[in-house]
Amino acid sequence: MTSKATTLKGQPLDRPVLDAMLRRRMFFTPAFEIYGGTAGLFDYGPPGCALQANIIDLWRKHFVLEEDMLEVDCTVLTPLEVLKTSGHVDKFADWMCKDPKNGDILRADHFVEDVLEARLNGDKEARGQKVDGEEPAADAKKKKRKQKTEAVKLDDAVVQEYGEVLAKIDNYNGEELGELIKKYDLRNPATGVQPSPPVSFNLMFQTSIGPSSNSPGYLRPETAQGQFLNFAKLLEFNQGQMPFASASIGKSYRNEISPRGGLLRVREFLMAEVEHYVDPKSGKQHPKFADIENIELDLLPRDVQLSGKTDLVRMTIGDAVRNKVVDNETLGYFLVRIFLFLQKLGVDQSKLRFRQHMANEMAHYATDCWDAELFTSSGWIECVGCADRSAYDLSVHKEKTGAPLIVRERLDEPIIEERWEVEIEKKKFGPHFKKDGKAVETALLATTQDQREALAKQLTETGNTELEIAGVGDGKVQITKDLVTIEFRKNVINTREYTPNVIEPSFGIGRILYSLIEHSYWTRASDGGDEARGVLSFPPEVAPTKVLIIPLSANKAFKPFIQKISQKLRKLGISSRVDDSSATIGKRYSRNDELGTPLGITIDFQTVQDSTITLRDRDSTKQVRADEDQIVAAVQSIVDGTKQWKDVEAELPAFEGQEVDVAVR
Amino acid sequence: MTSKATTLKGQPLDRPVLDAMLRRRMFFTPAFEIYGGTAGLFDYGPPGCALQANIIDLWRKHFVLEEDMLEVDCTVLTPLEVLKTSGHVDKFADWMCKDPKNGDILRADHFVEDVLEARLNGDKEARGQKVDGEEPAADAKKKKRKQKTEAVKLDDAVVQEYGEVLAKIDNYNGEELGELIKKYDLRNPATGVQPSPPVSFNLMFQTSIGPSSNSPGYLRPETAQGQFLNFAKLLEFNQGQMPFASASIGKSYRNEISPRGGLLRVREFLMAEVEHYVDPKSGKQHPKFADIENIELDLLPRDVQLSGKTDLVRMTIGDAVRNKVVDNETLGYFLVRIFLFLQKLGVDQSKLRFRQHMANEMAHYATDCWDAELFTSSGWIECVGCADRSAYDLSVHKEKTGAPLIVRERLDEPIIEERWEVEIEKKKFGPHFKKDGKAVETALLATTQDQREALAKQLTETGNTELEIAGVGDGKVQITKDLVTIEFRKNVINTREYTPNVIEPSFGIGRILYSLIEHSYWTRASDGGDEARGVLSFPPEVAPTKVLIIPLSANKAFKPFIQKISQKLRKLGISSRVDDSSATIGKRYSRNDELGTPLGITIDFQTVQDSTITLRDRDSTKQVRADEDQIVAAVQSIVDGTKQWKDVEAELPAFEGQEVDVAVR
Repeated sequence: MTSKATTLKGQPLDRPVLDAMLRRRMFFTPAFEIYGGTAGLFDYGPPGCALQANIIDLWRKHFVLEEDMLEVDCTVLTPLEVLKTSGHVDKFADWMCKDPKNGDILRADHFVEDVLEARLNGDKEARGQKVDGEEPAADAKKKKRKQKTEAVKLDDAVVQEYGEVLAKIDNYNGEELGELIKKYDLRNPATGVQPSPPVSFNLMFQTSIGPSSNSPGYLRPETAQGQFLNFAKLLEFNQGQMPFASASIGKSYRNEISPRGGLLRVREFLMAEVEHYVDPKSGKQHPKFADIENIELDLLPRDVQLSGKTDLVRMTIGDAVRNKVVDNETLGYFLVRIFLFLQKLGVDQSKLRFRQHMANEMAHYATDCWDAELFTSSGWIECVGCADRSAYDLSVHKEKTGAPLIVRERLDEPIIEERWEVEIEKKKFGPHFKKDGKAVETALLATTQDQREALAKQLTETGNTELEIAGVGDGKVQITKDLVTIEFRKNVINTREYTPNVIEPSFGIGRILYSLIEHSYWTRASDGGDEARGVLSFPPEVAPTKVLIIPLSANKAFKPFIQKISQKLRKLGISSRVDDSSATIGKRYSRNDELGTPLGITIDFQTVQDSTITLRDRDSTKQVRADEDQIVAAVQSIVDGTKQWKDVEAELPAFEGQEVDVAVR
Repeated sequence: MTSKATTLKGQPLDRPVLDAMLRRRMFFTPAFEIYGGTAGLFDYGPPGCALQANIIDLWRKHFVLEEDMLEVDCTVLTPLEVLKTSGHVDKFADWMCKDPKNGDILRADHFVEDVLEARLNGDKEARGQKVDGEEPAADAKKKKRKQKTEAVKLDDAVVQEYGEVLAKIDNYNGEELGELIKKYDLRNPATGVQPSPPVSFNLMFQTSIGPSSNSPGYLRPETAQGQFLNFAKLLEFNQGQMPFASASIGKSYRNEISPRGGLLRVREFLMAEVEHYVDPKSGKQHPKFADIENIELDLLPRDVQLSGKTDLVRMTIGDAVRNKVVDNETLGYFLVRIFLFLQKLGVDQSKLRFRQHMANEMAHYATDCWDAELFTSSGWIECVGCADRSAYDLSVHKEKTGAPLIVRERLDEPIIEERWEVEIEKKKFGPHFKKDGKAVETALLATTQDQREALAKQLTETGNTELEIAGVGDGKVQITKDLVTIEFRKNVINTREYTPNVIEPSFGIGRILYSLIEHSYWTRASDGGDEARGVLSFPPEVAPTKVLIIPLSANKAFKPFIQKISQKLRKLGISSRVDDSSATIGKRYSRNDELGTPLGITIDFQTVQDSTITLRDRDSTKQVRADEDQIVAAVQSIVDGTKQWKDVEAELPAFEGQEVDVAVR
């Protein structure tokens, strides 16, 4: 893996050129831009919106339908109490500090990181070393915040110390970050002033539900909680059968301290989450694991990262689970399902890896976690998290509310439990011992099996017994057989109760969408020696629009053909757009390529004569010509994935001619 | 229209029975129920979630794809400034009052309405009249808040006065509502105490965007504003062509004071909105109006309501527009498109009407508005609003930000404007008139064309002229020809600039979903004399799941058949569920009918022998038997709408037998 992002065709990726194209084609745009914009909020324009809908559609088919998941749609507004119990009110926070001079608000860990890295780069420069090295493992978030460097040489010992601090930057709490700021005299480059000590800032958006001020609530930080709260109903809906999964697609919110980085760090985002409930006693096996165990993944396990390396380990998921690289089958199964989903979307597999979280890096609820990361011009981006949340959430909500967020399983073979049991004769016991009753009862119930056996024997033989209980009378209490029964009993247990564990694949749709754009992007040299033209080679299933319909000109003779083809395609559920603007055919195809539309149909004067139309392939710019039915059939087979362009090209006569003006912009 | 809600088959609708069924089948459920619930927030369970997704899918096809709309996805979080400009910060509010004794918060208009109605009902009771009359026009919202009545006879004059107050209840402001409370001594039935004077309560959820406290924001109350703010970009994306429409599907929020009424009054809801931009000068004609002008709608125009009636007027939309019942073609076109959409969904057309808003009832931005209302057990429910927002929103945002939210149209024929123009010679003018300069300039520019002609003549002939300007010198000002040029000029205007008007169809998806459930619901007498069993007869396209697959028993021989059929259906994009629980076939079909699944496939021992399977129709409970391919083909044709059950029944051999145990629950 090289350090620089490349296009689909291996060209160096020119980010500003891509950004300009995405903006021009309105894939997305800063929200409220005419009001000056609001950081971390973006709107999707028509192609971005369609791309998002297609990703969601594929996700629903791949996960909800294929795996028979129970999809739910829960509210974003969430009362405080729920998120207090889940731990988010206390722990879903970042450390922030303030520049006392200009009021800048800084995220403390990013600030420390940025200043130290700038110093290290300054040192390298002073030593005459190359500053841009290999991309480190988790550099994505830093990319956008790069500081200006000054060429100042540091002592070797200082260089090493800074390196050590950076390696464990995710490990420091607020106080420790504050100490680092003082110790190394870290200053805000904008003002030259040291910021204030870090304070905790909760990342949830707070509001008030209803007209009274005593019902605080938050915008949910994840869709998961709504699913957990409905667990008992979902289990009942699933007729009590385990394992099963719920799923949800919806907006979540995170009030980032200082978001920069486009779609990669936003305050409002679409998530798709699966909560797969599994019996922990089953070893978290998965019934369909055998189907996928031979699929190979590129893994970056925890121990490799701890040794300071980023080398990927390629192995089958079967081996990974057998060797305990991946903890269990269910986790492994979902890593492969995530992989297959990303593959279907069209992400570049050479830019995909699965990175295991380090212990200190995991969310407060996770016991193990792997991220699917995609490589982009901002480095490796976490796009899907796959966490084992154990029984954490169901347990805390059950404890707080008393709701039965558990599974009751009928045992195939009942468990027979034999034991000495103590039964108090309440009616006589209380009046007899009066104020000491509770203490005597507690002492009796606290006895061991051996003690009970001895007590029972004495009661049977002598009718009474003596128990030593400190603090009651003289410490010795006489107990007669009318006050208590101690018997050896046999109990048959038919059901087992347990709290399921949860494996959670969690998808950040916006991050996937942006990374997919970079992975699908390349530039084509223009014939006329003009600047290169952008192409987005989305797979047909994912492309925002499938077919562009272009009449050669505004001539009225073309209208009925346009209408007929549009209607045929619509009936087949294939989205198309007509471009009857006055731009040249070439310009219109060029616009089309930038929008990622895989196929183009042209209607020209020959169409009017013999009803034939041409079909153009976005990626090769090659064309075929045939009658309408043949072309529509070809479109359908490409869109539903049964054929590729090369098949169509082999079947239908080639057409050359129109694209003479492609080079003209 | 009778006053009582009925099922699809005309049976009286038993709301508690329906509610219990919807709860049992987890169509939706109160959110955070295990924490005691939060009023106005609901979660959708698997069938509700799938139903919602299918409604959205149909909406997208019917509006976005068929009409080539530009779909966008904008953020819910919205800065204060935007909603201040749009008028929501000042006007999106209800009046509330507080009970000083128990702290109850009451929505003032509902409170006045409820207490007066209770008194009127008490009067009727005392007079021995029937209390439950015809449903009034806008009674939906009251249904859930009915007060206990006391049989107290009122004076005839008082009865009339109360009636008059109720008729214009939506007309009162807070002060007036307060006066009514005092005048009639209205008391909270819960405490017997008069509530405090009404205060305005803004219905938007407020929050703070980013870590500093000086960026207040709201959760959007509608998706429209995001679309308006992007108007200039959308117009450019549409290559400058008018008219066009943007569309958006997403959550909006309304912090209801005291929501009761299930899915019909919620604080978080899914909306689908279209903003159709039209040139006001075009008379708001619509190019496709001719296609739909003969479609008939049931209308309840403003003037009928003002006369105190609720009789529907059935007429073609062509006549309605010609007779100015509906203001313009574009509004009329969308009323029909809304009608066709609701028809496709399966709403009962005898329970659908279009009601025009009265002047005082419209939102602050609307100039005309029609609601598509559906009749349910809660009365007539506004499910779709279709408003003419004129140029209101684009104008206010343009004025506030200076952004060009306008259309520049190249004129086919340039307009030539000839007129007398005044041009001040700034360099000399200022120094000459000194402090009076501004006043003189204003007076000059305020002259009429005739005055200018006269002034120009004098200047040309004599080199100077005299102007009467009160307050400058002695009221007469000498102007020489070196200070000003007055000429007759010819201007050629090639482009026209205008702010488009907006027609907005706005859909409340949750309300549509709930009403559709009531319209699709009926009960079937059970063979065994048991209680009636519920059925939800959704059209196949809308049904949450299309096919239920039932193996006769848990016998292993059935497994491969289940798998094969599931896979075939999945490949065709047809959603199915397997029910291999141990319940009887009859019980499983019954569950299926409650979930609204249109088709059932049964696998039995004959399947193992000859590979035939049975197909059951939810609505008739009839079955056919044929080989797998024939059944799958039949399923496909029913789901895609090319065939109905009666066609399948005519083609394939009938099967009778399994459903013997249907009556057993």
